[in-house]
Amino acid sequence: MATLTISSKNYSSWSLRGWLMCKMAGLVFEEERVPVDDPDAKAELLLLSPSFLVPRLVHEGVTVWDTLAIAAYLNEVFPEAGLLPPDRAVRAHCLSISGEMHSGFANLRSALPMNIKARYPGFKVWAGAQADIERIVAIWRGCLTAHGGPFLMGPYPTLADAMYAPVCSRFTTYDVPLDATCAAYRDRVMALDHMQEWIAGALAEPEELEELDVEF
Amino acid sequence: MATLTISSKNYSSWSLRGWLMCKMAGLVFEEERVPVDDPDAKAELLLLSPSFLVPRLVHEGVTVWDTLAIAAYLNEVFPEAGLLPPDRAVRAHCLSISGEMHSGFANLRSALPMNIKARYPGFKVWAGAQADIERIVAIWRGCLTAHGGPFLMGPYPTLADAMYAPVCSRFTTYDVPLDATCAAYRDRVMALDHMQEWIAGALAEPEELEELDVEF
Repeated sequence: MATLTISSKNYSSWSLRGWLMCKMAGLVFEEERVPVDDPDAKAELLLLSPSFLVPRLVHEGVTVWDTLAIAAYLNEVFPEAGLLPPDRAVRAHCLSISGEMHSGFANLRSALPMNIKARYPGFKVWAGAQADIERIVAIWRGCLTAHGGPFLMGPYPTLADAMYAPVCSRFTTYDVPLDATCAAYRDRVMALDHMQEWIAGALAEPEELEELDVEF
Repeated sequence: MATLTISSKNYSSWSLRGWLMCKMAGLVFEEERVPVDDPDAKAELLLLSPSFLVPRLVHEGVTVWDTLAIAAYLNEVFPEAGLLPPDRAVRAHCLSISGEMHSGFANLRSALPMNIKARYPGFKVWAGAQADIERIVAIWRGCLTAHGGPFLMGPYPTLADAMYAPVCSRFTTYDVPLDATCAAYRDRVMALDHMQEWIAGALAEPEELEELDVEF
């Protein structure tokens, strides 16, 4: 049996990424929730960065606690699931843009934190975050052109789509204007069965963030 | 033939990581330097985060531009080099702490930027960066205990040591107090042949950062 430790389904973008990867890989797992007032879980939400607590996977005696490390582990155990593309050059592309998401886009994270329940029509995006949005749009267009869509690496969702799924949610929440191709991609990810299952979980969560003194 | 794009050897910690991995993997490659006044290279130095420009590896028609993506690629092409440990659980540990370095420690990066040439005896570390240092020391101790040293994952250097090599340089530059075990590990990494080769390159660099208006 496997256990995936996650945090808030509404707010924790790293939890969503790890959870989606496990689902895509076909792993059967139990969810364990870190209390939202746990100092490290709070740090993950406040800093909008991954931590060694969330997401964390325990499977067959192996503990893995970083999002990309979890992806590599899942791809080793379930290679047939296609979490990483079979072609070497496409796989390198997939890992490159996944790595960019993993270590970058700090302005986007702080200015447009994931908040699945919320909607801000006409939200005014700060210039620093706008530069991040433009880089993401360039990445998406490049992938959809190079690999033919409808997902970033081609015909089915991979690690890359899991890494950018919270961005699709943010673009929805903050009403970020997108061209038709990118808007269609965003909606395609939001409509995935696994994504819909996560969103339903987020909508069912009690409001907790007032207790955290988080300012958005 | 392979080409690795890097930035300053004195200041660019992500360049150092990518370069060390290529050396550890046994890749024969040419170095290509991004001009230090290139806007994206400057951003990498100023933001102390990786970018899609640096490090970037081109090998046999494949382009890979994220540090961990380069590691995964090198491990595929040169599996016998042992950049990732052969044991699944140890490999998961290696990737987890490498992922933590890749996406975290923002306070350490901004407060103690890599500067191989400089020495600041008695440097006063801000509390936020001190928390990062404590986490790194805990990671090092955990690895050296679990895998028996002398390197993080056991008898020889792996991806994990490449990821933490710039931290060894920072701990040297900023005179960060360490217990005997961690100080010995720091010195062991600094003494590696590849590290000494990189350091010689850094020392030979002209002073360029005044032009960038970088304040340290």
